[in-house]
Amino acid sequence: MTNPPPGERMRAEIAEQPEVLAGLVERRSALADVAGRIAAARPRFVLFAARGTSDHAALYAKYLTEVLLGLPAGSVSPSTTTLYGAKPDLTDVLYVTVSQSGGSPDLVEATHAARARGALTVAVTNTADSPLAGAAELAVDIGAGPELAVAATKTYTATLLSLYLLIDAVRGGSGEAVADIGALSASALGAEGVEEAVARLRFVDRVVTTGRGYSSATAAEAALKLAETSYLPARAYSAADLLHGPVAAVDKETAVVAVASAGRGGDAVREALEVVAASGADIIAAGSAAASVPATLRIELPEAPEEVAPILEILPLQRLAHGLALARGGDPDAPRGLSKVTRTR
Amino acid sequence: MTNPPPGERMRAEIAEQPEVLAGLVERRSALADVAGRIAAARPRFVLFAARGTSDHAALYAKYLTEVLLGLPAGSVSPSTTTLYGAKPDLTDVLYVTVSQSGGSPDLVEATHAARARGALTVAVTNTADSPLAGAAELAVDIGAGPELAVAATKTYTATLLSLYLLIDAVRGGSGEAVADIGALSASALGAEGVEEAVARLRFVDRVVTTGRGYSSATAAEAALKLAETSYLPARAYSAADLLHGPVAAVDKETAVVAVASAGRGGDAVREALEVVAASGADIIAAGSAAASVPATLRIELPEAPEEVAPILEILPLQRLAHGLALARGGDPDAPRGLSKVTRTR
Repeated sequence: MTNPPPGERMRAEIAEQPEVLAGLVERRSALADVAGRIAAARPRFVLFAARGTSDHAALYAKYLTEVLLGLPAGSVSPSTTTLYGAKPDLTDVLYVTVSQSGGSPDLVEATHAARARGALTVAVTNTADSPLAGAAELAVDIGAGPELAVAATKTYTATLLSLYLLIDAVRGGSGEAVADIGALSASALGAEGVEEAVARLRFVDRVVTTGRGYSSATAAEAALKLAETSYLPARAYSAADLLHGPVAAVDKETAVVAVASAGRGGDAVREALEVVAASGADIIAAGSAAASVPATLRIELPEAPEEVAPILEILPLQRLAHGLALARGGDPDAPRGLSKVTRTR
Repeated sequence: MTNPPPGERMRAEIAEQPEVLAGLVERRSALADVAGRIAAARPRFVLFAARGTSDHAALYAKYLTEVLLGLPAGSVSPSTTTLYGAKPDLTDVLYVTVSQSGGSPDLVEATHAARARGALTVAVTNTADSPLAGAAELAVDIGAGPELAVAATKTYTATLLSLYLLIDAVRGGSGEAVADIGALSASALGAEGVEEAVARLRFVDRVVTTGRGYSSATAAEAALKLAETSYLPARAYSAADLLHGPVAAVDKETAVVAVASAGRGGDAVREALEVVAASGADIIAAGSAAASVPATLRIELPEAPEEVAPILEILPLQRLAHGLALARGGDPDAPRGLSKVTRTR
């Protein structure tokens, strides 16, 4: 038996996503029980605890919670509990942990603590028999199948879609906005411009990613993928934050990867990009509104309702991270220093 | 009248901090009314809205809120309201906005919306007559005096201390942990090792900052200062997140600026640094527990209770950002692309 070529695992898992996503929509009735329990509990606040890629999915879900459910949502640091023993009153709180492995001890400990303090706890994982799924009162299985590549790809989009389907079901929706997600994601995955973007970033030293609104999650996740697989010092800024200071880090030597989808987030990102373009930065724009923002290279994606666009936006950017790692002589399946499950205390 | 030399404004404002902080402690009774109103309202949840440097102060305040007040706290994205018109029910919510200028239209709009939805609103600003202070029901003036440098320094530490004093007063505390903050901050500001760190980072291309617990805020703010003033692609990771993926971005060409103060956060950071040190990265450790973590250079700071250590930790790192900008031929007072007040919608 020979080893697979460099990056083969990540490539294969990126390619699986349309099937994984279509399958999730087909099985959406599996979420009805959990959604019903949440709706019946009538939570007043939603708190998300997650790390890394899962935290970007949680950022997306915060937007969904506030906009679609009309509930205040915040992200919490599990370490207030695990390091400092904080004991907040969590009555009326829905406490959602997100972790593909379901194996992080600090999230398990934070879930136990949240339950003891009165929260309704939900674990969103890719591992139905994980300690985290066992610790929470309710569990959502994102059903992405085993993920062997170190860099999370299909579990990220499956988590986004699961969170969308769950939140939509809590409000009594029928998942209409994602009915075609299989076909749309296949189209987004095949978007033109990715190879050209790889060539263009072959020798780049600095990357800044940016987005606004729902697409902030995409910008954060794209930066993490680039950092993980290509050792690139990539940094994500909300397009709003970009105007608030760190824009000084953007100059002629900086590549900006901007996410611009049709809708209010895309409109808001345009203004920031006009400032950035004036600094001489190289802008690669991805999204269904890529054509409407200043850019040197565009990766155009099919249009989708703004609240589900992040599921599509990340797909070509995963390919970008994968292709760039290979082009720069690395192996995206074997990045330095990374292991798949990390035991954080 | 001649222009001041490069970086003179930022240097002067960094140096003012011990006096500003001591003055805040002296005037802490000015917070009694706001603290009393908050305590009387008995909020069940605390939400923070802020951007940039102020968002790092809000991260610190989230820890204080959960640990010292036992209330769940989360950070929110104002754009759920300003872009998407989210209308969450905010009864029993304390909604805290943090902004030195008090001039960001999106925070003003989000505050109006939060009041209308039932929240008790508090604005923490350096501008008592700002639109934000006017929009909120309660206002805290951090009283740092005019900040002329583009990079926020004294307003950051004054915001941290104001938030500490406010939260401490809400729980009926007497500010004991910060009674000596004037002397402690003078000592931290004079810490040895900063010039050596500047020399060491003169030609660096990649910086990662890291911390854990309360000190996560310091790591985030230090990365922003380096990005703003030295155009360095600096990225902050919680020490927990560093083990969850992005550690692949750390190699022999990467400088790691680690914050390690005595207490549970510092203990937790040590484990991550042991992994990072094995990758050959250059580690500069700052904090009262710097001596106990693997590092190539240490900036040792006076010990303080862990919950107030962030007020001290950032001081030598501001000097590092300032010194590095000058060493690299820049002017930290005139970074490219930055303006002092940004009007984000």
